[in-house]
Amino acid sequence: MRARDLLAPFPTVGLDTPVPEAAGLLAHQDLPGLVVVDETGAPITILPGPEVLRLAVPAYCQDDPALARVVDEAHADTFLKGANGRRVRDALPDPPRKLPVTDPDATVLELAALMARTHSPLVAVTEDGRLLGAVTLQALLDRVLAA
Amino acid sequence: MRARDLLAPFPTVGLDTPVPEAAGLLAHQDLPGLVVVDETGAPITILPGPEVLRLAVPAYCQDDPALARVVDEAHADTFLKGANGRRVRDALPDPPRKLPVTDPDATVLELAALMARTHSPLVAVTEDGRLLGAVTLQALLDRVLAA
Repeated sequence: MRARDLLAPFPTVGLDTPVPEAAGLLAHQDLPGLVVVDETGAPITILPGPEVLRLAVPAYCQDDPALARVVDEAHADTFLKGANGRRVRDALPDPPRKLPVTDPDATVLELAALMARTHSPLVAVTEDGRLLGAVTLQALLDRVLAA
Repeated sequence: MRARDLLAPFPTVGLDTPVPEAAGLLAHQDLPGLVVVDETGAPITILPGPEVLRLAVPAYCQDDPALARVVDEAHADTFLKGANGRRVRDALPDPPRKLPVTDPDATVLELAALMARTHSPLVAVTEDGRLLGAVTLQALLDRVLAA
């Protein structure tokens, strides 16, 4: 079994994708993060899920989450509006998260080694610099445990 | 909206749960990780998904994942057997990953602040030290974006 048998199309965002749009992609699909691609479609890095919240949550709440409870509930529910106008490039962790990349011939063991080494539940699969899709930890475990 | 409205039962493992059993839980449910609880059922930490692979992948492959390709494909497909006999306590990252914990009254903003601060897509919700369930990033985004 090779990466080509396990990969699935994976939604991507660009550096200039608005953060609320990225949040929508994460919500509607059950994803551990989003692959960030450059203008040519080549993967650059990963935007881990929790990072889409970071720009929307006021700094004083992040320093002391218990303070968030003093915000009235109606406003608390709409906190994501705080990310309006922000873009994926502003939400990326610093330093950027390493997105493991391999080619369609990678074996299951190589995919697992990449995930274990980079602590990533996702490996991007490219051919000639173009993103073909991604193999998730779920897809890998599903197939390995069924074998 | 409060944590009590967003939480869902969440599968847990103990420190002595075998790693292959933890891998099975991760595969069959689409989870970012597993909540590790002590003998009393109180949450201790989180076992992030990719860590279940770490003990199963030989060290030389993790150092250089390309070396994994020299292992023949049939053996590569069964690499998870390498985790047989290992337990969750052996698979935990060092230092342990911080699992954010809150109570059922936490607001959406507080949950988001906890996720943003700890880079965790998961917040455990406890009452009197007992785990009630967890709020995932997905559940939070689904509800916030639908509001």
